Amino acid sequence: RDAGTHRSFFAAAATRATERGFRLDEFALSAPNMRPERLSELLRVRGIHGVLVAPLPGQQVSLDFDFSEFAVVGLGTSVSQTPIDRIADDHFYAAKLAYEQCRALGYRRIGLSITASISRRLEHRWWSGYLVAQQQAAPRLAIPSLMPETRDQIPPLLNGWISRHRLDAVIFALRDESQMGCAPPHVGLVSLSVPQPAGQVAGIKQDEAGLGAGAVDLLVATLT
Amino acid sequence: RDAGTHRSFFAAAATRATERGFRLDEFALSAPNMRPERLSELLRVRGIHGVLVAPLPGQQVSLDFDFSEFAVVGLGTSVSQTPIDRIADDHFYAAKLAYEQCRALGYRRIGLSITASISRRLEHRWWSGYLVAQQQAAPRLAIPSLMPETRDQIPPLLNGWISRHRLDAVIFALRDESQMGCAPPHVGLVSLSVPQPAGQVAGIKQDEAGLGAGAVDLLVATLT
Repeated sequence: RDAGTHRSFFAAAATRATERGFRLDEFALSAPNMRPERLSELLRVRGIHGVLVAPLPGQQVSLDFDFSEFAVVGLGTSVSQTPIDRIADDHFYAAKLAYEQCRALGYRRIGLSITASISRRLEHRWWSGYLVAQQQAAPRLAIPSLMPETRDQIPPLLNGWISRHRLDAVIFALRDESQMGCAPPHVGLVSLSVPQPAGQVAGIKQDEAGLGAGAVDLLVATLT
Repeated sequence: RDAGTHRSFFAAAATRATERGFRLDEFALSAPNMRPERLSELLRVRGIHGVLVAPLPGQQVSLDFDFSEFAVVGLGTSVSQTPIDRIADDHFYAAKLAYEQCRALGYRRIGLSITASISRRLEHRWWSGYLVAQQQAAPRLAIPSLMPETRDQIPPLLNGWISRHRLDAVIFALRDESQMGCAPPHVGLVSLSVPQPAGQVAGIKQDEAGLGAGAVDLLVATLT
């Protein structure tokens, strides 16, 4: 996830909070001199009872913070160690839909390229949608997904993987369109997170604004 | 889903509705002389603005009813043709967890037995969790799931499938424990929907009460 995604989340959440008669303030646990106990104290003093948790950086899956006295909603799937309410895209459904649309367009040998780190962060839900769609459409196909640990490992592996498995389409998890440029021109390209609904790349537009607003609605429902 | 599940949903939803200052009444579209227009009229006259939709029978995925003037929440995944808010178990996560627990107990060749009709109804989310967990734990294993169309086709196929793939454990989607009795005794058995948390069969207990209450909370949040 990039900074742009976080901004859309925050903007949509702040707008909805205002509509519902609340105010959304931002606090960074990573700020200088900030500690978990200090943040709790700050929230308590200000009479803040509800907390939205932004997506955590990198591979972080838990937050060193005692949520017990607050109503909490996590944006996206990143907080998974502490069992809190979370609001996120239906990644399984999105990947399944992308595969099915490729099939409908006539593509037959469809691969999935995703970094292992992103896949873990989404609890492998994108991967699962791809696997189910493939099993349904073509039970004998078992194209291994291209899943190196990090992004920069994808471009050098991409074309070998495409030709080895004679792919005619690739579903990318990446937001980063430049990486898709490495693929040969006859291969269909789809992204599971296009930045705009009608941009140059075909794919799924995640609804960050809807998620931000939904997170506030859920939090307000918990608080009232 | 059986009638017991529906009762737990309803009871939990009714209790929560009362707690929140609302009342839950039951209307059956299948009642004699009931028609969609008549039900709309009935709800309108009684000043009812919010509707919970119980799981639909059989393979039904849509309801002949104009939801546009009501706040609506569907229980479970069965209403999928009309895009309404729904509240359901995280079936993907449950199946993945069941597989991982089998691995942790030492089982290695783990199969999934589920009727195709139930799988479709859950948008293949149980299947997807199984597929991802298997790909992660044993990328070279590709044990085909036992997926006949209906329940009664499972028992005659079960033991042949178990021995053909040398399974040491089977994950059943079924609620119906009697069917599991057909498996040979050395095979570990897990159910994805055990009726009680500490019954005779190992498996996942779905939280019907939590879902019923959560559906009411979501509906109340939409109404207020």
